[in-house]
Amino acid sequence: MRCCITLLEKVNEPSDVKRLTEAQLLQLASEIRTFLIESVSKTGGHFGANLGVVELTLALHRVFDSPRDKIVWDVGHQAYVHKMLTGRREQFATLRQYKGLSGFPKRSESPHDAFGAGHASTSISAALGMAVARDLSGERHHVVAVIGDGALTGGMAMEALNHAGHLGTNLLVILNDNEMSISENVGAVSKYLTRLRTDPTYSRAKAELEAALRKVPAIGERLTKTLERFKDSMRHLFVPGMWFEGFGFKYLGPVDGHDLPGLIRVLEDAKHLRGPVLIHLVTRKGKGYPSAEDAPDKFHAWPSGSGGKAAPSYSSVFAETLTRLAEADERVVAVTPAMIQGSGLGKFQQKFPRRLYDVGIAEQHAATFCAGLAAAGKRPVLAIYSTFLQRAYDQVIHDICIQKLPVLIAIDRAGLVGADGETHQGAFDIAYLRTVPNLTLMMPKDENELRHMLYTGLQLEGPVAVRYPRADGEGVPLDESLRMLPVGRAEVVREGSDVALLALGPMVRVAEAAAERLADQHGIQATVVNMRFVKPLDHALVVRLAERMPLVTVEEAALAGGMGSAVMEALADAGVLSPVTRMGLPDVFVEHGSREELLMAFQLSPEGVADAALRTVRAAQRGRRVEV
Amino acid sequence: MRCCITLLEKVNEPSDVKRLTEAQLLQLASEIRTFLIESVSKTGGHFGANLGVVELTLALHRVFDSPRDKIVWDVGHQAYVHKMLTGRREQFATLRQYKGLSGFPKRSESPHDAFGAGHASTSISAALGMAVARDLSGERHHVVAVIGDGALTGGMAMEALNHAGHLGTNLLVILNDNEMSISENVGAVSKYLTRLRTDPTYSRAKAELEAALRKVPAIGERLTKTLERFKDSMRHLFVPGMWFEGFGFKYLGPVDGHDLPGLIRVLEDAKHLRGPVLIHLVTRKGKGYPSAEDAPDKFHAWPSGSGGKAAPSYSSVFAETLTRLAEADERVVAVTPAMIQGSGLGKFQQKFPRRLYDVGIAEQHAATFCAGLAAAGKRPVLAIYSTFLQRAYDQVIHDICIQKLPVLIAIDRAGLVGADGETHQGAFDIAYLRTVPNLTLMMPKDENELRHMLYTGLQLEGPVAVRYPRADGEGVPLDESLRMLPVGRAEVVREGSDVALLALGPMVRVAEAAAERLADQHGIQATVVNMRFVKPLDHALVVRLAERMPLVTVEEAALAGGMGSAVMEALADAGVLSPVTRMGLPDVFVEHGSREELLMAFQLSPEGVADAALRTVRAAQRGRRVEV
Repeated sequence: MRCCITLLEKVNEPSDVKRLTEAQLLQLASEIRTFLIESVSKTGGHFGANLGVVELTLALHRVFDSPRDKIVWDVGHQAYVHKMLTGRREQFATLRQYKGLSGFPKRSESPHDAFGAGHASTSISAALGMAVARDLSGERHHVVAVIGDGALTGGMAMEALNHAGHLGTNLLVILNDNEMSISENVGAVSKYLTRLRTDPTYSRAKAELEAALRKVPAIGERLTKTLERFKDSMRHLFVPGMWFEGFGFKYLGPVDGHDLPGLIRVLEDAKHLRGPVLIHLVTRKGKGYPSAEDAPDKFHAWPSGSGGKAAPSYSSVFAETLTRLAEADERVVAVTPAMIQGSGLGKFQQKFPRRLYDVGIAEQHAATFCAGLAAAGKRPVLAIYSTFLQRAYDQVIHDICIQKLPVLIAIDRAGLVGADGETHQGAFDIAYLRTVPNLTLMMPKDENELRHMLYTGLQLEGPVAVRYPRADGEGVPLDESLRMLPVGRAEVVREGSDVALLALGPMVRVAEAAAERLADQHGIQATVVNMRFVKPLDHALVVRLAERMPLVTVEEAALAGGMGSAVMEALADAGVLSPVTRMGLPDVFVEHGSREELLMAFQLSPEGVADAALRTVRAAQRGRRVEV
Repeated sequence: MRCCITLLEKVNEPSDVKRLTEAQLLQLASEIRTFLIESVSKTGGHFGANLGVVELTLALHRVFDSPRDKIVWDVGHQAYVHKMLTGRREQFATLRQYKGLSGFPKRSESPHDAFGAGHASTSISAALGMAVARDLSGERHHVVAVIGDGALTGGMAMEALNHAGHLGTNLLVILNDNEMSISENVGAVSKYLTRLRTDPTYSRAKAELEAALRKVPAIGERLTKTLERFKDSMRHLFVPGMWFEGFGFKYLGPVDGHDLPGLIRVLEDAKHLRGPVLIHLVTRKGKGYPSAEDAPDKFHAWPSGSGGKAAPSYSSVFAETLTRLAEADERVVAVTPAMIQGSGLGKFQQKFPRRLYDVGIAEQHAATFCAGLAAAGKRPVLAIYSTFLQRAYDQVIHDICIQKLPVLIAIDRAGLVGADGETHQGAFDIAYLRTVPNLTLMMPKDENELRHMLYTGLQLEGPVAVRYPRADGEGVPLDESLRMLPVGRAEVVREGSDVALLALGPMVRVAEAAAERLADQHGIQATVVNMRFVKPLDHALVVRLAERMPLVTVEEAALAGGMGSAVMEALADAGVLSPVTRMGLPDVFVEHGSREELLMAFQLSPEGVADAALRTVRAAQRGRRVEV
């Protein structure tokens, strides 16, 4: 391998790319692919997307002058090559590891990362902001946004296209059309792009028809007038990128994204155009790695290694249960914004192709689409990750909850998500959802309870959210028959009289282990409660326990506004004074690292919870002694 | 007047509209206008928008069969005529009044209100959900979404167009293009619509050129082939609504929205088309009321009567201060999603036209556009209402706060908003923002402090949000020189030792009045604190006070996760046990009514706060007595 990356080792900053000959650039592209395959197969990470943008990234750093010129990567999981070319190649062994290189662009990591990313569809907005700032300051550099075809259909990307077209300032948008975002592309615009790519009419027709019409002899005044009227609007009517022209962009393309010399020429040309310009690039995900090219969905990301699984993941239990519930109730419809694979819904899709709607990267629409389904008598289930539900927050409030519509929101990746890091943590959903009236919010202690919660959620006549972690289950047996859980009632899983551990979701198991520790090592008897419902909270139980012993709340969610806070609200409303120690995620954006590493770091472990409970018990004893 | 509404009085449901002759329909349109002008000028409400859709609404109820057919109104403030025709005419005297008729469609109000609204751009998503539900159930009714040109450029509307085009199901979208949404329309798509409206080439060219080309004699094989290749794509290339065709819609229009017989014919035609269809309707806001037609912006809503103002509104103080700050710091740029007038920024626009960006109805883009500006060294100020900031929640987290970018979010209409009701209440922003790391969140006790907060916010090197109410100020003098407030420090405005009232924003004045009552009537001495900062909270002060007396928190925001909850978190973290009574908005969606009526209803009045404080003091005394 060493022999093959002789050039790459000499490239440490963009200026090194500028010095290479065309032949050397081609060799460098090949070396980058070798390096990527080697490196990412060890660390895990997004693989196909990066193989697809090798030539693009080289061309960008050849033609533009980062960091003076700004390159904004949408989503950002395709920025590995960019990272390699901007001095971070040697850190690739730590990619997406705890304290290591981020899998996304990050302003704090390099001046070449003009804007951080993680979620889709933000790049054009951010780049336009930079372009406007440039204009206001009288500067003259270039701003480039690189966005995939999947992310393009996110509403905010279209909002940004619309605004950019309106302003008319110099801005280059590169549409990296790899004919497939995370899985299958969705939407009419995607079909339109395919037509642009595949229909030679579109790319040749304009020139040909114009030439032909010029040769037409005079055929009466009427046609001549028609043709003249056409002259002005001709450009708008005939260019292949008419949809983009509707947004006020000049459209160039489609361009072969793997033809490096061609790409460099197109970028050089685009540099000299005025106003907003869109280059439609056609690339292949996984380019240069045959099995990735064949199955791009599978190779979207290379999984980090994991041992032999005993328990199924929460996602797969969700999907299996939903399929079963859909068999029993034909009103059940699944909706997901581009998360079929991630949410485990592949099997549901096979079984009920007509009852699964992948709306593409369009979280806002997904939520209100569900509200519409529910208003018409269906029982929609919105499968979404916690971090992406943030995108649909207003729709959850305005369209689902105000109208009390029975939409079941299945919140996957709630809590810590691991290698994706701070942009993807599911830390905030408890705080931002429990303030919304009419919503029932729950989290299961294990994969078996998840099944009962999904069943329960579908029986309720209003909006329900069930959050569950990005994790394998506990390996518990799955009950054959599903049952209704009493709404707003917690479950006492262990009785003790010294301290009560109020735990949510997988933290119940942690709290149980902590309770054993407390009993074994300190003779302290802890009650352990599986809270189940964050909203409505089991006020009666919380108050009853608080009257007898201090409380420790344990949740895998932001402490600010979290479940612990809800517990204290319940106590305050009841006029009960009792010590509450809250455990959860602190008030910082949590960086990447494995879920286990991060849980340890935040004391969300049996040891950590036991220690906190011990301190709480001791403080309460001192407190009582002082009072007495 | 009575004489003129003879027909209208007989119309109580849509079937009555179906029985009328064409001449009677025209008379009915005229009577509706008279009624609207009479009625809304008394109650206040959205005026121009409803005058603009009289013919459309009549035509819809003539052609379609509500409630079997579903009519979904976007935003919904243009649904007054629809309400009149569906049995609610007699309640118009209570429009937008406390306990009266809502200013928006509301499912609980009538089966003819197929989907509630308030925020823009939701209708196509909701209607598509209903259309899909219809298909799945094997039903055959029609689903119609009516959306304005302003709302069309909201990202979720485009997400929905894209999905609808992809699905290809029967769905009728009526684009009510009144050439102006709330104020001036923004965006390239708006320009495109104007071109469709005004350029006769677009509407006639297709037919003419097709006809002409058919007459062209054979002119060589090459052109013939070209023409043949064109045949298929002709439709796509020549239709005027190419941008909509890009989304997969059939486009009909533009159509005169005030030609009632014409409208009825078009709707009848559209009924028989298959797949998603968009009718581009051109209407005039305020049609039939000359002064409204001339100044549509001014007549968007007819204000409810209010007495002579002494104090300026918070909005106007914000705008005046921002203008001054922009004079002193050329990095300051104002950004607003279609809220120039509402946020008071009209004057700023006059003074700094190049430094104000109205991005249209596009909250998500607005926030990330600000992040881009900030990343490039500007000091963007995002002027937005609390309720609409919900739309940009993910962008606040992902683009602004993770990156610690210095964006100042000026949150207008925080708290109760009055007549717009449940869809517009600014109740949740404290809960959903205070859980976000890196953000500073404050609220001024009066309009003078707002000025210092804006100044302070622009000095800080990270994200800041300042929330303020939809209200007039307190009438306090405005300091000439602006100063930096100590971050995270509250202000004690009155000292007492029996109870501490921790108040936020305008509730400080209420708490002061409550303290006087407590002293006068009960001999209870209250400390009153102007909290200023929800985040970072003044932990030290809160703990110090809690150690000496019980606390009452007072905020105009949802109690669940609100400032009172933050206060309890601070106490819990410090291990201090002290009674806390929280006052604020309960866990319900608050309906419309004047801010004063609603504040009274929630005891957010001097009497209410004094009563709560009294109960708190008494309970604490009993508690102590029991302990001692």
